Amino acid sequence: MSTQTAAGTGRFISFEGIDGCGKSTQSRLLSERLRRAGTEVVLTREPGGAPGAEQIRKLLVEGATDRWSPETEILLFTAARRDHWERTIAPALARGATVITDRFVDSTRVYQGTTRGDLVDLVDELHRLMIGIEPDLTFVIDMSPEAALARASARNGGEDRFETFGTSFQSRLREGFTSLALRAPERVRLIDGNGTPEIVADRIDAEAVFTPA
Amino acid sequence: MSTQTAAGTGRFISFEGIDGCGKSTQSRLLSERLRRAGTEVVLTREPGGAPGAEQIRKLLVEGATDRWSPETEILLFTAARRDHWERTIAPALARGATVITDRFVDSTRVYQGTTRGDLVDLVDELHRLMIGIEPDLTFVIDMSPEAALARASARNGGEDRFETFGTSFQSRLREGFTSLALRAPERVRLIDGNGTPEIVADRIDAEAVFTPA
Ligand SMILES: Nc1ncnc2c1ncn2[C@@H]1O[C@H](COP(=O)(O)OP(=O)(O)OP(=O)(O)O)[C@@H](O)[C@H]1O
Ligand SMILES: Nc1ncnc2c1ncn2[C@@H]1O[C@H](COP(=O)(O)OP(=O)(O)OP(=O)(O)O)[C@@H](O)[C@H]1O
Ligand SMILES: [Mg+2]
Ligand SMILES: [Mg+2]
Repeated sequence: MSTQTAAGTGRFISFEGIDGCGKSTQSRLLSERLRRAGTEVVLTREPGGAPGAEQIRKLLVEGATDRWSPETEILLFTAARRDHWERTIAPALARGATVITDRFVDSTRVYQGTTRGDLVDLVDELHRLMIGIEPDLTFVIDMSPEAALARASARNGGEDRFETFGTSFQSRLREGFTSLALRAPERVRLIDGNGTPEIVADRIDAEAVFTPA
Repeated sequence: MSTQTAAGTGRFISFEGIDGCGKSTQSRLLSERLRRAGTEVVLTREPGGAPGAEQIRKLLVEGATDRWSPETEILLFTAARRDHWERTIAPALARGATVITDRFVDSTRVYQGTTRGDLVDLVDELHRLMIGIEPDLTFVIDMSPEAALARASARNGGEDRFETFGTSFQSRLREGFTSLALRAPERVRLIDGNGTPEIVADRIDAEAVFTPA
């Protein structure tokens, strides 16, 4: 896995973890804290985060789960990520903004790798070839699939392709995210996701000093 | 470039060449001749050729020409091709059908390579990684850009992203297709595209013996 970090002067932070663990909530809360401290923050998400990438997202999240093979799906995720990188992330970092993204390449590594173990190498190879950038810092929000699924099912919304696989699949995802954190401890921080949003936010703050730009 | 040929027992044939040279016309005419001779033929096209791939095609042919970077575009073409291969081409070849496709990977090699020469290696690398198959036989229909553009502009239709670049771009495309034929003469046959459709079809027949399956 490439350990190359983002170009430019801004900081590049991703949030990862199983469905419903609190990624969107915590990326929003961190953005708000940093903005209050005077930092320019671009809050974005994957798949999507740029107009073209959002169109590709539609192809990925709508339709039957067997609409794409795992290989085609990886290509579409990588295409969306390349567009997201070029049009949103790289320009923001280049002007010194902090970029916070709700999911990045680790999601593809873990989801596709959990579907079929041999795909992890393919994800890494495509990422190296087409993007080659890792976040400076990644927060994996860790919690039990039961607790996370309870949160996620309390919401509504049609984009639930990945949420239909049940807790056994989510348990394997959780293991995937945990082992990422073990393999790249300098970049990937495991955050206990239990408790109120404010408690979890305090744990994130304790992991890294977020100084104003 | 990989010289691996198609799996299965059927024959895999592609038509290539600059815009308006007669690919769609000749792939249709060849299908008709082979069907009359009793061969099962699947006639297909790129980008597209499968339901998912046709959705990706829409992203590629609609919108402004700078909608995607060359790199994102290559990823989308490769995703569409992987889907086309898995869902349409490979199953047809496996049951012994002849597959005739109106464009395949050579179009991506030549178009992207003409846009930016360094992209040819990226196209090849992605193709090797994600698809790895070359047609058994490729017909490049060769003619002057002026003559081909005159044909193409006689038609109507909104999918003219690639036809808006003018004859100087088309001249460079022509060179790209010609040099493919020189590099892989056993696979790629250059066909003079001038004359009536029937005259061109006779030239194609003269290049290869099409025996019934
Ligand atoms: N700490 C928390 N305690 C209780 N509920 C929470 C907490 N954090 C988030 N939630 C709620 O749980 C649900 C899932 O949270 P959120 O959308 O942030 O998760 P997510 O990881 O982004 O999910 P997904 O993977 O589906 O995008 C939301 O309804 C959110 O309001
Ligand atoms: N040999 C020919 N003589 C005259 N007109 C032709 C001939 N072959 C095709 N045409 C006409 O020229 C136009 C372009 O042909 P065709 O659509 O087959 O080309 P194409 O290579 O598929 O073009 P595109 O790259 O735009 O898909 C059509 O209107 C077609 O009917
Ligand atoms: Mg979310
Ligand atoms: Mg055509």
